[in-house]
Amino acid sequence: MKEDLKVLKDLLKEYAKAESVQALVQWDQETYMPEKAGEFRSEQLAWLSALAHEIHTGKRFKNALEKLVDLNTGHILNDESDEETTRLLHLVWKDYHYASVLPASFVEEFSRLTSQSQQVWAKARVNNDFKAFQPYLEKIVDMCRKQADYYGYTTTPYDALMEQYEPGMTTETVTALFSELKEGLIKLLDNIKNSGDKPDDHLLKKSFDTAHQWAFGLEVVQKLGYDMSRGRQDRSAHPFTTGFHPTDVRITTRVFENDMKSAFFSTVHEAGHAMYEQGLPPEHFGTPFGQAASYGIHESQSRLWENMIGRSLSFWKHFYPRLKELFPVLQNTLVDDFYRMINTVEPSLIRVEADEVTYSLHIMLRFEIEKMLINDGLNVSDLPEIWNEKMKEYLGVVPPDDKMGVMQDVHWSMGAVGYFPSYALGNLYAAQFLNQAVKDHPDFWDIIRAGEFTILLNWLRKNVHTLGRRKDPLDLVKSVTGEKLSPQPFLKYLNEKYKVIYKLL
Amino acid sequence: MKEDLKVLKDLLKEYAKAESVQALVQWDQETYMPEKAGEFRSEQLAWLSALAHEIHTGKRFKNALEKLVDLNTGHILNDESDEETTRLLHLVWKDYHYASVLPASFVEEFSRLTSQSQQVWAKARVNNDFKAFQPYLEKIVDMCRKQADYYGYTTTPYDALMEQYEPGMTTETVTALFSELKEGLIKLLDNIKNSGDKPDDHLLKKSFDTAHQWAFGLEVVQKLGYDMSRGRQDRSAHPFTTGFHPTDVRITTRVFENDMKSAFFSTVHEAGHAMYEQGLPPEHFGTPFGQAASYGIHESQSRLWENMIGRSLSFWKHFYPRLKELFPVLQNTLVDDFYRMINTVEPSLIRVEADEVTYSLHIMLRFEIEKMLINDGLNVSDLPEIWNEKMKEYLGVVPPDDKMGVMQDVHWSMGAVGYFPSYALGNLYAAQFLNQAVKDHPDFWDIIRAGEFTILLNWLRKNVHTLGRRKDPLDLVKSVTGEKLSPQPFLKYLNEKYKVIYKLL
Repeated sequence: MKEDLKVLKDLLKEYAKAESVQALVQWDQETYMPEKAGEFRSEQLAWLSALAHEIHTGKRFKNALEKLVDLNTGHILNDESDEETTRLLHLVWKDYHYASVLPASFVEEFSRLTSQSQQVWAKARVNNDFKAFQPYLEKIVDMCRKQADYYGYTTTPYDALMEQYEPGMTTETVTALFSELKEGLIKLLDNIKNSGDKPDDHLLKKSFDTAHQWAFGLEVVQKLGYDMSRGRQDRSAHPFTTGFHPTDVRITTRVFENDMKSAFFSTVHEAGHAMYEQGLPPEHFGTPFGQAASYGIHESQSRLWENMIGRSLSFWKHFYPRLKELFPVLQNTLVDDFYRMINTVEPSLIRVEADEVTYSLHIMLRFEIEKMLINDGLNVSDLPEIWNEKMKEYLGVVPPDDKMGVMQDVHWSMGAVGYFPSYALGNLYAAQFLNQAVKDHPDFWDIIRAGEFTILLNWLRKNVHTLGRRKDPLDLVKSVTGEKLSPQPFLKYLNEKYKVIYKLL
Repeated sequence: MKEDLKVLKDLLKEYAKAESVQALVQWDQETYMPEKAGEFRSEQLAWLSALAHEIHTGKRFKNALEKLVDLNTGHILNDESDEETTRLLHLVWKDYHYASVLPASFVEEFSRLTSQSQQVWAKARVNNDFKAFQPYLEKIVDMCRKQADYYGYTTTPYDALMEQYEPGMTTETVTALFSELKEGLIKLLDNIKNSGDKPDDHLLKKSFDTAHQWAFGLEVVQKLGYDMSRGRQDRSAHPFTTGFHPTDVRITTRVFENDMKSAFFSTVHEAGHAMYEQGLPPEHFGTPFGQAASYGIHESQSRLWENMIGRSLSFWKHFYPRLKELFPVLQNTLVDDFYRMINTVEPSLIRVEADEVTYSLHIMLRFEIEKMLINDGLNVSDLPEIWNEKMKEYLGVVPPDDKMGVMQDVHWSMGAVGYFPSYALGNLYAAQFLNQAVKDHPDFWDIIRAGEFTILLNWLRKNVHTLGRRKDPLDLVKSVTGEKLSPQPFLKYLNEKYKVIYKLL
């Protein structure tokens, strides 16, 4: 058994190496690739992707895995295997199952469809022409339903889709969490709307030297704990994080002269993701214990650092003097006023531009629509109308057109249905993690105010990062915080914070 | 046969894709890789290298090739194949033969040895301790001799080693060429040493803004024809060119504030390499017809652009006004004086810093030593003494220590024996190509002076670049210029140029 396990682990590492090379080639595509190299780059990536898939699902892997696990049921063959090995083999089998259960013809068709759809979507969005995108989205929804059937599920097909992003999470659980969250958020948002003392952030739209913005962002994330000897930051059209190995985790951003919040908070956000990847245990590289627990847990890291730390008053008590030094335009602004400026709340149309309070509302309406599409047979042609109704219900604003509405996100055109909930769940995980860290260190905020961020990084390393996928998200939250996952800690955090910012009663 | 050929070409393309990914990963290693990612990077590269080797020499490739060529003799099996296909199959077989004839155990041992040796060499060089490097070099020389036996040869084992870099070139041919070249160079060098009117280039060691240096270099190479929509320039410790495909060919350099010549001429040199790679026919990507003819032909391109164009008076008649604009320190210097400054000749100890006249002398002494090591059983322990004797004989200078002498180059520690001649042969090819281009366009230098460099680029595209490996270097020179390869055109070029610069009689 020990020998068989080693063979399997070596194959997992080989697969991870192939994926790491693919990720590097993609990173180059988004950062430095010359303009006309795109066509050949697609060929390189298609080759690498087929190669990685072959390592993961080919004969060698199958032979190695079936010595340890019943491929059909996932049952571990050796009854004496310890708890850790059982968990490991369960995850390896699950990944293999998802990667190999779809027929090759289905994978190929889905890949062709989504590749076309992304182009059609991009064009349809520019032209504000949902009708052009509709037939593609119809096919995608249809194939996603079939995908769910291939994967298998106990209750609803949407569960099978979400499982890829948030293992162990069910439609039922998310529905309950979001319904409680919705109520609390809408109440808070109403209070904020009715505030008689709103912060004015026009100052942050003045000119901020872009080189200084870049340097300041990097200075800050290094203080937070992003290790630049194992990472770097480059420019790209859309910010992202990519990790090849815990010793090489890179972030990107873009800088706008007249929007100082944009680059800075994206840098902190991506650094949050990156510190997670840097904290994964290198000795488990390639195996599930060396991988992130879920998309939502990943998002909890970025949102914790960006919003709960990076937009906190304690954080700025430490960094504001340096910021003022770099940007004299802030000379006459007090830190308390600056703190209010970077925490303005405003119901808006576009998810990626949303603030901390309204962000989850954008997610919830997507979740409801996805559920209806996958579980209840909603027609794609009805999407624009339903989208606008729900925007009105959740946020009180109605998109003037589909470009600003139902067509704003790339996810569906990529076939990524079931992904959205992870974004909002990240907020809930983050609030509970932070609560526990503060419980463990009662002087937490004083230490943050003093610029000592290792207190949080070490806490996350110990309780989240080094665990890899040992626990599914719900179990992880329970075991780390002693509490079940709930929206209440996040709502409490928001209510306390925004009471001060919007001077609510 | 047509079907079999297609299968073979598809495998060649797959191999080229694997190599292109490897080259990109190496490029990243030299440019942007975080400091601590080195260990994992070695693992990625070892995996890619083994993978590429497997594609090139594995069962699939063997099966495809043996349908078309007798694997033992290289004889083409189909007598009706046209001349082009015959040439193509010959080259494919030759590459396969070299890649597969070495036993796996030998390849592994050689790879381990040279990897160790490079580290030992680097340390020994710093410590000026040839004795520490000697046992490694002895083993390398020993294995290179064995390598030659595996490859096979008609006359001397050194031929077999050179064949990898300069196909069709023999020890006998190079010996004859170099002996004639040596005589001419030493005579010219003597005249230069005795000149009563030497240029003074101290001005070029003043401060030159590094950002301007960078921008000017890029401005120039784009005018020469380096297509930045299919390339880019980045910083690295040592300048190099790397091509993944004709649509993605990248150069690197480094910039010194107090040595304006260094970055500029390295940029033009690398752009010369890069324009060759950009000019290879993309429709033959992966096959020998889409590859560079030899290391020496590659070097002919870089040296032609760097020295014969980039250090010509006509070139600077066009670019000098712009240079003065960027660097006011040159305000009171006439273009003719600047031209003399960038063409100073001085026998020196280090090959990579040598000027156009003395450079080939550095190569020749290496060639003589390699010949003795491989063909005549010279002892490695005698190298330092022989090196110093030959430096005295060729250049009239003697290194103060082995660090500045026999240990200066990385090549031997990498097992690259037989490579050096290509550098000097590049000068000879370049001079003959340039002669022919001028014959074909009698107003050549007027057009260069007017800043129209497409005249040369188009000539090279047509006569060299688009041919790939259709002809071996000696045949290529003969067919393009109608003349056999000879040192005389290069010597004539140097004599005419330096007569003016050193005001010789």
